[in-house]
Amino acid sequence: MQFQSQVAEQSGVQAMEWCGSHLRILDQRYLPGQQVWVECNDAAEVAEAIELGVVRGAAAVGIAAAYGIALAAQRIGHADDWAAALEIDFIRLGRSRPSAANLAWALRIMHDRLRRPGADVPEQLAQAAISIQISDLEANRTMARLGMQLIRRHQRQSQRLMTLGNAGALAGGGYGSALGVIRAAHGAGLVEQVYACESRPGDTGEVTAWELAQDQVPVISHVDSAAGQLMRLDNPSWVVVGAERIAANGDVINTVGTYTLAVLAMHHGLRFMVVASSSTIDLTLESADELDLASEALEQGMQPLLDVTPADLIDVIVTEKGIVERPDESRIADLLSHRRLH
Amino acid sequence: MQFQSQVAEQSGVQAMEWCGSHLRILDQRYLPGQQVWVECNDAAEVAEAIELGVVRGAAAVGIAAAYGIALAAQRIGHADDWAAALEIDFIRLGRSRPSAANLAWALRIMHDRLRRPGADVPEQLAQAAISIQISDLEANRTMARLGMQLIRRHQRQSQRLMTLGNAGALAGGGYGSALGVIRAAHGAGLVEQVYACESRPGDTGEVTAWELAQDQVPVISHVDSAAGQLMRLDNPSWVVVGAERIAANGDVINTVGTYTLAVLAMHHGLRFMVVASSSTIDLTLESADELDLASEALEQGMQPLLDVTPADLIDVIVTEKGIVERPDESRIADLLSHRRLH
Repeated sequence: MQFQSQVAEQSGVQAMEWCGSHLRILDQRYLPGQQVWVECNDAAEVAEAIELGVVRGAAAVGIAAAYGIALAAQRIGHADDWAAALEIDFIRLGRSRPSAANLAWALRIMHDRLRRPGADVPEQLAQAAISIQISDLEANRTMARLGMQLIRRHQRQSQRLMTLGNAGALAGGGYGSALGVIRAAHGAGLVEQVYACESRPGDTGEVTAWELAQDQVPVISHVDSAAGQLMRLDNPSWVVVGAERIAANGDVINTVGTYTLAVLAMHHGLRFMVVASSSTIDLTLESADELDLASEALEQGMQPLLDVTPADLIDVIVTEKGIVERPDESRIADLLSHRRLH
Repeated sequence: MQFQSQVAEQSGVQAMEWCGSHLRILDQRYLPGQQVWVECNDAAEVAEAIELGVVRGAAAVGIAAAYGIALAAQRIGHADDWAAALEIDFIRLGRSRPSAANLAWALRIMHDRLRRPGADVPEQLAQAAISIQISDLEANRTMARLGMQLIRRHQRQSQRLMTLGNAGALAGGGYGSALGVIRAAHGAGLVEQVYACESRPGDTGEVTAWELAQDQVPVISHVDSAAGQLMRLDNPSWVVVGAERIAANGDVINTVGTYTLAVLAMHHGLRFMVVASSSTIDLTLESADELDLASEALEQGMQPLLDVTPADLIDVIVTEKGIVERPDESRIADLLSHRRLH
């Protein structure tokens, strides 16, 4: 209960609600028109919700998957070997959205928890999932402060920001990565106008515009191809986006169109900020440069959902562990090594 | 009849059909799913078809308006002062899409024809409208040849081209400006793959993909925001687009997203070609740089349909009078002065 009110404090909207015996997920496919809640009772239903895009946003997907494991344990009730009993659920959830780095990360945390099973493993896993959501929320708060400070350092007055996709409260634990920064900047009087790209083909920009409007942040949603013209004539100062996965060298995989915005930002002298928790960084991926996500999708007769932005187009990556300016392999390694100090 | 077959030769699709007593227009709002024909019997119906986007493409709009004047004259039948009798129709049609330079140009030609009224003015005006359509078709053929030669000069082998909007057979007299160049290049064995931007919010890229597929040109339609990633990884050599209006200094007003593509093209080393008949050039517009079409639309609660690409991002403008490389005011004036020599 305390947890619920903690989430509610942060923003008017939230992606999911843990109800003890089931997980309620706000169906993002119907937003902003309708608020439809989907009830998930086991891991398979959570996996399906992830696959169908009921829940989106890399962090939210990780949190939902963690709750999926907790639900699976409840259904099982008792087991001698929990890791074996839950194996199929871990596999099922792990496959629901392989591109999201946080998904693997959250499932790893849940799996680690099984190493020291207590008296009530289902309850123990539910607490672990709640912890993941709370720590995502705390990470978002920290990132929001760090990102806001960067915006203020760059320019003290009210300015125009552009964002793509939905890296908001609905995309994570309840506050938002990129939109957390934008909310904090708005709170500090630094936001004159937000431009939200429509973000085809997912159309998640609509959700972003709706989410910001709920918090009285002035926002305009526009077609993706108008971004260039708006940068040229309306002088926004920053592009602020989230990330699906970040490679060891700082390359960012995110909603398709992020790369186009990064090139446009460089051409127009805008600064480019990526906001994502450190769990988004995947050290097993040396660089993302060789991935061709757009062409791959088109060859399969689908529209691309993701693209790759090379690190050299990114001014700063903001994580809860600190910021990385002009990201490269050694600066990212430095950031992550701080983990060991705590 | 001869005219119809002349049009049919050029491409499998056509935007409109003059039937002597009325004008049939292929309703582009239903393409590529359905082929719905709209019958227009007077100038007001043609103007409405233009306003509603039944007919799109700057050249096609000009041709349809010319037929609209011919229909208006038929309805009137006899007049002592034809200019006075048709005044309201000229005004109505002129307002149907003020951004299209060809519209004003075509109406000016029709109005000039009234200075030397013959025995049968309605027939005289119908012939004038047919001449406008035929000369657009001829201009397209010439531009197609010139544009294809540029592509071949640049690189002799088969290559990848990107286009935005629909500057095809349906957008003009029956062959296409940008798509005419692409068709001719395909005919010359120079096209491996065409990338057609979805072109939100008009979604005219779908029509482009459909039109090219009818002619067996290999084409992929993709979301606008994937353009950057496709340029980075698939190495297209040219962006080929049409124009709604070209200022005296070479600035191009066209489907929104053209500017974004021009910036991306410069960043990735692609060449950028604008294909449009000389009637698209508006010498009364010194430069288009100060226009803020995207912001204007957004402020009015609409999505922008057009944007401005400054001349310095354009490698070449192809017209039926010749090509203008690195366009500027004096080179464009030179091109147009050739008119007087013929």
